[in-house]
Amino acid sequence: TYQMKNETDEVGIVRGLAWTSVGGDTLQIEVNLMPGTGEFLLTGQLGDVMKESAQTGISYIRSIAAEYGIEPEFFQKNDLHIHIPEGAVPKDGPSAGITMATAMISAITGTPVKADVAMTGEITLRGRVLPIGGLKEKLLAAKNARIKKVVVPAQNKPDVEEMSQEITQGLDIAYVDTMSQVLDIALAGKED
Amino acid sequence: TYQMKNETDEVGIVRGLAWTSVGGDTLQIEVNLMPGTGEFLLTGQLGDVMKESAQTGISYIRSIAAEYGIEPEFFQKNDLHIHIPEGAVPKDGPSAGITMATAMISAITGTPVKADVAMTGEITLRGRVLPIGGLKEKLLAAKNARIKKVVVPAQNKPDVEEMSQEITQGLDIAYVDTMSQVLDIALAGKED
Amino acid sequence: TYQMKNETDEVGIVRGLAWTSVGGDTLQIEVNLMPGTGEFLLTGQLGDVMKESAQTGISYIRSIAAEYGIEPEFFQKNDLHIHIPEGAVPKDGPSAGITMATAMISAITGTPVKADVAMTGEITLRGRVLPIGGLKEKLLAAKNARIKKVVVPAQNKPDVEEMSQEITQGLDIAYVDTMSQVLDIALAGKED
Amino acid sequence: TYQMKNETDEVGIVRGLAWTSVGGDTLQIEVNLMPGTGEFLLTGQLGDVMKESAQTGISYIRSIAAEYGIEPEFFQKNDLHIHIPEGAVPKDGPSAGITMATAMISAITGTPVKADVAMTGEITLRGRVLPIGGLKEKLLAAKNARIKKVVVPAQNKPDVEEMSQEITQGLDIAYVDTMSQVLDIALAGKED
Amino acid sequence: TYQMKNETDEVGIVRGLAWTSVGGDTLQIEVNLMPGTGEFLLTGQLGDVMKESAQTGISYIRSIAAEYGIEPEFFQKNDLHIHIPEGAVPKDGPSAGITMATAMISAITGTPVKADVAMTGEITLRGRVLPIGGLKEKLLAAKNARIKKVVVPAQNKPDVEEMSQEITQGLDIAYVDTMSQVLDIALAGKED
Amino acid sequence: TYQMKNETDEVGIVRGLAWTSVGGDTLQIEVNLMPGTGEFLLTGQLGDVMKESAQTGISYIRSIAAEYGIEPEFFQKNDLHIHIPEGAVPKDGPSAGITMATAMISAITGTPVKADVAMTGEITLRGRVLPIGGLKEKLLAAKNARIKKVVVPAQNKPDVEEMSQEITQGLDIAYVDTMSQVLDIALAGKED
Ligand SMILES: [Ca+2]
Ligand SMILES: [Ca+2]
Ligand SMILES: [Ca+2]
Ligand SMILES: [Ca+2]
Ligand SMILES: [Ca+2]
Ligand SMILES: [Ca+2]
Ligand SMILES: [Ca+2]
Ligand SMILES: [Ca+2]
Ligand SMILES: [Ca+2]
Ligand SMILES: [Ca+2]
Ligand SMILES: [Ca+2]
Ligand SMILES: [Ca+2]
Repeated sequence: TYQMKNETDEVGIVRGLAWTSVGGDTLQIEVNLMPGTGEFLLTGQLGDVMKESAQTGISYIRSIAAEYGIEPEFFQKNDLHIHIPEGAVPKDGPSAGITMATAMISAITGTPVKADVAMTGEITLRGRVLPIGGLKEKLLAAKNARIKKVVVPAQNKPDVEEMSQEITQGLDIAYVDTMSQVLDIALAGKED
Repeated sequence: TYQMKNETDEVGIVRGLAWTSVGGDTLQIEVNLMPGTGEFLLTGQLGDVMKESAQTGISYIRSIAAEYGIEPEFFQKNDLHIHIPEGAVPKDGPSAGITMATAMISAITGTPVKADVAMTGEITLRGRVLPIGGLKEKLLAAKNARIKKVVVPAQNKPDVEEMSQEITQGLDIAYVDTMSQVLDIALAGKED
Repeated sequence: TYQMKNETDEVGIVRGLAWTSVGGDTLQIEVNLMPGTGEFLLTGQLGDVMKESAQTGISYIRSIAAEYGIEPEFFQKNDLHIHIPEGAVPKDGPSAGITMATAMISAITGTPVKADVAMTGEITLRGRVLPIGGLKEKLLAAKNARIKKVVVPAQNKPDVEEMSQEITQGLDIAYVDTMSQVLDIALAGKED
Repeated sequence: TYQMKNETDEVGIVRGLAWTSVGGDTLQIEVNLMPGTGEFLLTGQLGDVMKESAQTGISYIRSIAAEYGIEPEFFQKNDLHIHIPEGAVPKDGPSAGITMATAMISAITGTPVKADVAMTGEITLRGRVLPIGGLKEKLLAAKNARIKKVVVPAQNKPDVEEMSQEITQGLDIAYVDTMSQVLDIALAGKED
Repeated sequence: TYQMKNETDEVGIVRGLAWTSVGGDTLQIEVNLMPGTGEFLLTGQLGDVMKESAQTGISYIRSIAAEYGIEPEFFQKNDLHIHIPEGAVPKDGPSAGITMATAMISAITGTPVKADVAMTGEITLRGRVLPIGGLKEKLLAAKNARIKKVVVPAQNKPDVEEMSQEITQGLDIAYVDTMSQVLDIALAGKED
Repeated sequence: TYQMKNETDEVGIVRGLAWTSVGGDTLQIEVNLMPGTGEFLLTGQLGDVMKESAQTGISYIRSIAAEYGIEPEFFQKNDLHIHIPEGAVPKDGPSAGITMATAMISAITGTPVKADVAMTGEITLRGRVLPIGGLKEKLLAAKNARIKKVVVPAQNKPDVEEMSQEITQGLDIAYVDTMSQVLDIALAGKED
């Protein structure tokens, strides 16, 4: 069953698009920030590539933290937990990279994420966005979940242009090359 | 053999419903809180998904600790141990999530859990309750253990409505979407 | 070869009953307490279930430590080592739970354990005693080792009542539901 | 698809040449330096040999840090993260050794790396550069990515001399024996 | 080839008797004590049972340290390394227990071990000595290495009594039940 | 290809002799000493036996550190990294023991190692040198690399005496029983 879009903008929750053996799906990434000792927790049966993708995202965020007025000690004094329901379903791959990073930045800065946006894309340590696979199935899943706006890697534009209009019709697709562009689109209180 | 319901409300003990290869069963989750150094112990032959579910629950609790007047340092100064008898029987899956979280909150706040309640449901990091499988077998196990009140994920309501009345008759089924609703039902001294 | 019963009451040594592939056996659990840093050492080729059982026991003890006048810091300032000879023989299962817990309490409090008592039973985090398997073989092993008093889970009473008198004759069987009852029987200087 | 050369000199990013099952490829190694506790993070599905190669590089850098005016405590007070996209592609072997070391030195000293240089070579603990395999495929990949200058181990010179001119034409190949020579060529603001 | 007996009494070196697939052998256990942080190092391709046996020995020694005038902090301020040459030969089993413990006590107290003594026996946490296997082969190896005095578990006496006089002739066999008896025989400057 | 001998005496670099599936080979062991926290790093695809051999060497060195005027805290305040190129080639066995120990002592004391010496031999915790295998192939490799002086365990003398003169001619073979003898031969500024 598809999980419908959030009703209100929330902090630390971002909708991702996944590609599973049975087609596309949406998954809601949750991040909690807690006073702690700098631990980084990952749950929801994430595979190695996905865990490394989350680690890459947090290092990217640490490297730009000063731009958001966040002290370096912040990351030693708080624990950060990323969880992806459903907890029994194994998940892997790098394509949730920008989704996990957006959820972490939202939690760390306290900025809500727009409820009507979903996204997919690999993140690099320097905040570049790399192309991903299974885009057609992911866009279909977004439509089924009544999502209007989808953030997609710019390098996947040729894949979208090859799709039939049936799939893309009604979807507002934003192409991105950098995490900075992702955040401009997804964080509430930014351009729209 | 079914373990009969507790006779009195206890702190840190909650009845869960499990689905095993030989049908439904009830299991009693025990939590001890001890002065310590922030260790989190899990015993009873819990599988990976179940351990992540416990970890998700404790992070949820830490994120709402302030609402219960619990200091952030509390979690660095105490050890928390979750044990699920029988110790030789392997257990797994996310469906004990709300049960483990309820037992931890009971132990941390010192609030007794109502002896006549059993529960099943996946927990998310933000305290949402997600649907689980094997509900028919679990409800039968609850009846056999003379349990009256059962807490079930709201998203499982269609499953219950498809069951014959023989199964559900005599059971007071509460549907929940959030941990907050679970606690309102299960903690003694709350609504009932 | 059966190890005969201890001749004198000792601190930190308790006789357990085990069920092996070649029948019942007795095994002597040893506990040493040493000034240290809170390490918990387990040796004697113990399997995962047995290690968790020992961990459950130590948490139970920590949770009742105040009743024995033991400071919480005690467990951070001492190391506790449980060893079960013979070191090359793999051992597993939850049935040494109450034996290990009794040996630890004896070592921690400095109270001798009665030399003429053997025991078997699963322990839970809250100090309940759960039933175990292979009781007939264990009681035969106790008789062969000239042990007079045997502590058995109350939930195993039906198993004993089904046994021929040949087995139980001459054995003083004490049925227990809680660790508190075990300690009343096994620690020297208590009821007898 | 080949990733084209960087447009501007950047800090902490170096182009490497890789040899994969489907021929040569270029890969962009990214390094982030963050205030921290001396952790060393490696992501991008790196194999054991590649991880040891990175570790060898960082120890080499620590041993020459004084020459760059870097305090010994620097490495205890910062975390260093090496990531090699694409995150889902397994990578291994020692031939990215000098590339990873160059990227780390660039990040640590804040010196940009020339955008038009790619490199391949094993690094030793003392900064010697050892020969690598698959050079023909790597040089072809460099040409396809429009890279002009390639740094190659001097001990591979015989391999280059055996290649047809078609491959080497238009490539400026620099032969190196030491990391010191690599840095002279790759760091901006140095000889050229 | 058999390693001949030591020529002089040394600190931290004890001759053990081993039973290998090709018959009995002697092996020389070495212990170094170093100012450190309480680490316990075991090398020489020791199997799990042998490592646990070493751990059991060190805990026994810690529990009797006060008798030797050794402060409890001693074990946090020193590292202890046990090595058994030849480094490429896998070794396992509990029968080197008393040998390793004797070598550790010698190193810790600075007392030399008599060069003409070899030993075999399992150690328990309380310093009891348990019987071992392969005694005939071990005694033959001791004779071949020109060793005169051999320490053997008292519970192995029946095994020795069944052997032909050819094997035992010329060997001074000491039967022991406790580590205290082992030390009386093996440490120089004690009864002889 | 054989790596020719070093041209000048260097600190922390020692030539070893190895026996591989394709015959004898020489390998250059590198050691870096860095201000740190007492970490011990081993790279170059070393197997378990070789890692234990390195560990045995460092403990030997720590136990004789006072003789070299090195403070015990030295080993807590520095990191020591042993690397053996070529990084992709798996290496194992105890025969590099004295080579690794010599390289470490050279790095720690700042004493150069003579460039014209190669060596092979197992080290024990007390600095004894034990015999090794494959000596014929190793000596041939030394000759091919134009090495003049070779350090060999005294217990391997019978193996050398059985070899044809073709192999040993032109090689200056030094037989050693202890690390002390190895250092006398290999460290520059010592007897020669
Ligand atoms: Ca779904
Ligand atoms: Ca903007
Ligand atoms: Ca049951
Ligand atoms: Ca309420
Ligand atoms: Ca036995
Ligand atoms: Ca009582
Ligand atoms: Ca590529
Ligand atoms: Ca220069
Ligand atoms: Ca031997
Ligand atoms: Ca005496
Ligand atoms: Ca070679
Ligand atoms: Ca000398």
